[in-house]
Amino acid sequence: MAAVTIWNEFRHEREDDDVAAVYPDGIHATIADALAADHTVQTATLDEPEHGLTADVLESTDVLLWWGHEAHDEVADEIVERVRERVLEGMGFVPLHSSHYSKPFKRLMGTSCSLQYREDGASERLWVVDPGHPIADGLAESTELPKTEMYGEPFDVPEPDRLVFVSWFEGGEVFRSGCCYRRGNGRIFYFRPGHETYPIYENETVRRVLRNAVAWASPTEGSPRTFGKRD
Amino acid sequence: MAAVTIWNEFRHEREDDDVAAVYPDGIHATIADALAADHTVQTATLDEPEHGLTADVLESTDVLLWWGHEAHDEVADEIVERVRERVLEGMGFVPLHSSHYSKPFKRLMGTSCSLQYREDGASERLWVVDPGHPIADGLAESTELPKTEMYGEPFDVPEPDRLVFVSWFEGGEVFRSGCCYRRGNGRIFYFRPGHETYPIYENETVRRVLRNAVAWASPTEGSPRTFGKRD
Amino acid sequence: MAAVTIWNEFRHEREDDDVAAVYPDGIHATIADALAADHTVQTATLDEPEHGLTADVLESTDVLLWWGHEAHDEVADEIVERVRERVLEGMGFVPLHSSHYSKPFKRLMGTSCSLQYREDGASERLWVVDPGHPIADGLAESTELPKTEMYGEPFDVPEPDRLVFVSWFEGGEVFRSGCCYRRGNGRIFYFRPGHETYPIYENETVRRVLRNAVAWASPTEGSPRTFGKRD
Amino acid sequence: MAAVTIWNEFRHEREDDDVAAVYPDGIHATIADALAADHTVQTATLDEPEHGLTADVLESTDVLLWWGHEAHDEVADEIVERVRERVLEGMGFVPLHSSHYSKPFKRLMGTSCSLQYREDGASERLWVVDPGHPIADGLAESTELPKTEMYGEPFDVPEPDRLVFVSWFEGGEVFRSGCCYRRGNGRIFYFRPGHETYPIYENETVRRVLRNAVAWASPTEGSPRTFGKRD
Repeated sequence: MAAVTIWNEFRHEREDDDVAAVYPDGIHATIADALAADHTVQTATLDEPEHGLTADVLESTDVLLWWGHEAHDEVADEIVERVRERVLEGMGFVPLHSSHYSKPFKRLMGTSCSLQYREDGASERLWVVDPGHPIADGLAESTELPKTEMYGEPFDVPEPDRLVFVSWFEGGEVFRSGCCYRRGNGRIFYFRPGHETYPIYENETVRRVLRNAVAWASPTEGSPRTFGKRD
Repeated sequence: MAAVTIWNEFRHEREDDDVAAVYPDGIHATIADALAADHTVQTATLDEPEHGLTADVLESTDVLLWWGHEAHDEVADEIVERVRERVLEGMGFVPLHSSHYSKPFKRLMGTSCSLQYREDGASERLWVVDPGHPIADGLAESTELPKTEMYGEPFDVPEPDRLVFVSWFEGGEVFRSGCCYRRGNGRIFYFRPGHETYPIYENETVRRVLRNAVAWASPTEGSPRTFGKRD
Repeated sequence: MAAVTIWNEFRHEREDDDVAAVYPDGIHATIADALAADHTVQTATLDEPEHGLTADVLESTDVLLWWGHEAHDEVADEIVERVRERVLEGMGFVPLHSSHYSKPFKRLMGTSCSLQYREDGASERLWVVDPGHPIADGLAESTELPKTEMYGEPFDVPEPDRLVFVSWFEGGEVFRSGCCYRRGNGRIFYFRPGHETYPIYENETVRRVLRNAVAWASPTEGSPRTFGKRD
Repeated sequence: MAAVTIWNEFRHEREDDDVAAVYPDGIHATIADALAADHTVQTATLDEPEHGLTADVLESTDVLLWWGHEAHDEVADEIVERVRERVLEGMGFVPLHSSHYSKPFKRLMGTSCSLQYREDGASERLWVVDPGHPIADGLAESTELPKTEMYGEPFDVPEPDRLVFVSWFEGGEVFRSGCCYRRGNGRIFYFRPGHETYPIYENETVRRVLRNAVAWASPTEGSPRTFGKRD
């Protein structure tokens, strides 16, 4: 059981009726519902003071999930740096879907994290390419998501430590949809599926992946990270 | 300019009229034609003495391309071992298509190298996922191969050092179609496209990949590989 | 709690008084003692029928530790293949010290697994280079082993997925002493320390590493590994 | 032949007589001398306008070497970002020694890039652990550097794509001294040896490594990096 914080931009849901219809309490509430049976869950959103990510909140977070889209730039650099440092100390970090462009993910990767996209509501098949990975525990070999926004390669990220999922899109594209990294002591899992107007986070496979990812990204004890001058 | 040896099982072409119609002089001849302008090319086939892979031939080979399918088991273990040792010394190795099941590739990978397949002649799109890799030099972001045999994940190989291509298949599958490895001093590039009844090796993109792969897999000077007892 | 099988060649201990003095009940007994509080442990040795590694034994093994040295060649290829297949299915595999040259490790790596060595009883410092790795849990930043056999680079293995330890040797050499791999669904951890005439497996840090490695290498549920023809 | 730009902070040499005695024309001049026979070389320093790294200079640079130490913080963020973007486009980047803490390297890695150090002038042995890597071309299996500043693990960087060198230090430490990364289309090689008061860049092995690194890090043609909305 991990202490999870789900961060959501929480703007679309309050501004757009179509989004509100799918996620009436916010995307974070739907994700919280997927995790609550296995983990201790709290949420945080952009418009709270310090975006809800005070030093205390981060200090007590094992795994931080992140959903952002239209307001990446409004996240304060100071908070981004605070998140990054906690990841290096060991906090897990799971950026979702459009959070490939979130500041903390870009900062941790060092690359542009750019990709191609098409918002056409066509279908996606999420394939497990690493069936031995714990994030794939209990999944079928592939899962169909009937309506999604397409993300296509090239995806400008460092070569993943482990590639867990590759997506097939009806329109002819492919995408590395589940990418594992370690940075410092922290485990990072980028997971592509998810969108504000499709009920992706209601999908049982997606919910299982989120639970698995939290378990995988949880901090472990480790050994000393001592730096600086040595006698 | 590398010294290339193209190894071909060369059975289908002599046994099956459909294959002979596509590759009248053997798949090795078509591949040789793709490489001859840039490299010194010789060929070797299964039914020659020592399968054409004498110690002298391997000693003078910079990069070995391999095409096998129905007769993997007829390749003598002694020759497989000879190939493996030359790869560890630095010879490049480029197994093609159904050669995922060739003895030298399986021996170098350590895994089963199994996959899923469907011989339906449906279309494939070969996507570059690593546009900075020299094997992708000069390619478009994706290339359509109108009729292919499908290969699908999971592909039981070690996580590639670099993943260059991912294929999209009309029938709904994906595959890691271009996988780079180093073993010892040798560079290995598994490349999926290719089939005995579709003229894949006439495709200009595929031919460019083969030329790029030979350049990439060519041996470099290195430093001493000294093993054993040390004073 | 994992079901562990410790395999030992168990020849030195019966042939050489110096070894018997250090490991009177065999190296496997000492290792078993290090693991017994946390795991279910059984042992198997070379001179038992099927080397003690029947299909039933392997089927019920979560993690197999392996210690061999002078009799690698006496291990039957059929048993090696049985071990390899169980690893691909998910069994953890932890080859120790001179088992870099064991048949199952060489078979899973595909390389020569050669290295340099000097049996001088000089000291070693085992450094954690990946303090976030669970195999380093609870360790100090480095641990001194006062008398060891030196192993030096180059070590002819595939680039590890994660490098956990690097050893410093009094005589001037370095070695990648803790190397993590995945092959199929199985996790592999090569761990260098250990010798038949030095009581390395009595060292508390080494014992902690063995316990950590068993926990890390234990199978996880995964998703289907289905291969072959697809409709 | 690559177009190389050597960037040097160039403060120590003008402020400290001991440094000036070793590198009277600046560290950049000594490095330039090591490369000039094989490459086109220009230099740039901190106190020039835009630190000598105008858009034009970077645009025409194939590989950028970087030496900084006491004034990392004086490098303008705008220039750091310009360097990072050029690396993602394909420019090679070779940070040297204390440049592990340079802004462009930290920005590209995403981690703290911290380490341990001791300025004791004790000896270092630089071991090749990847003898097949082109950066090791022509080197001996190890090279002694008689007086160096020690850098010790843990080194807080992402797991390298390839680890080429590991250093042994007389005082008992080890360090991953040659680390290869790709970010976007750019190749990055961190190389540890080098110091302002020891004539490390006069050492023939070190000079050979610098030449090899420039050749390895030079841009290749690649395929399109097209991002954004797709029809």
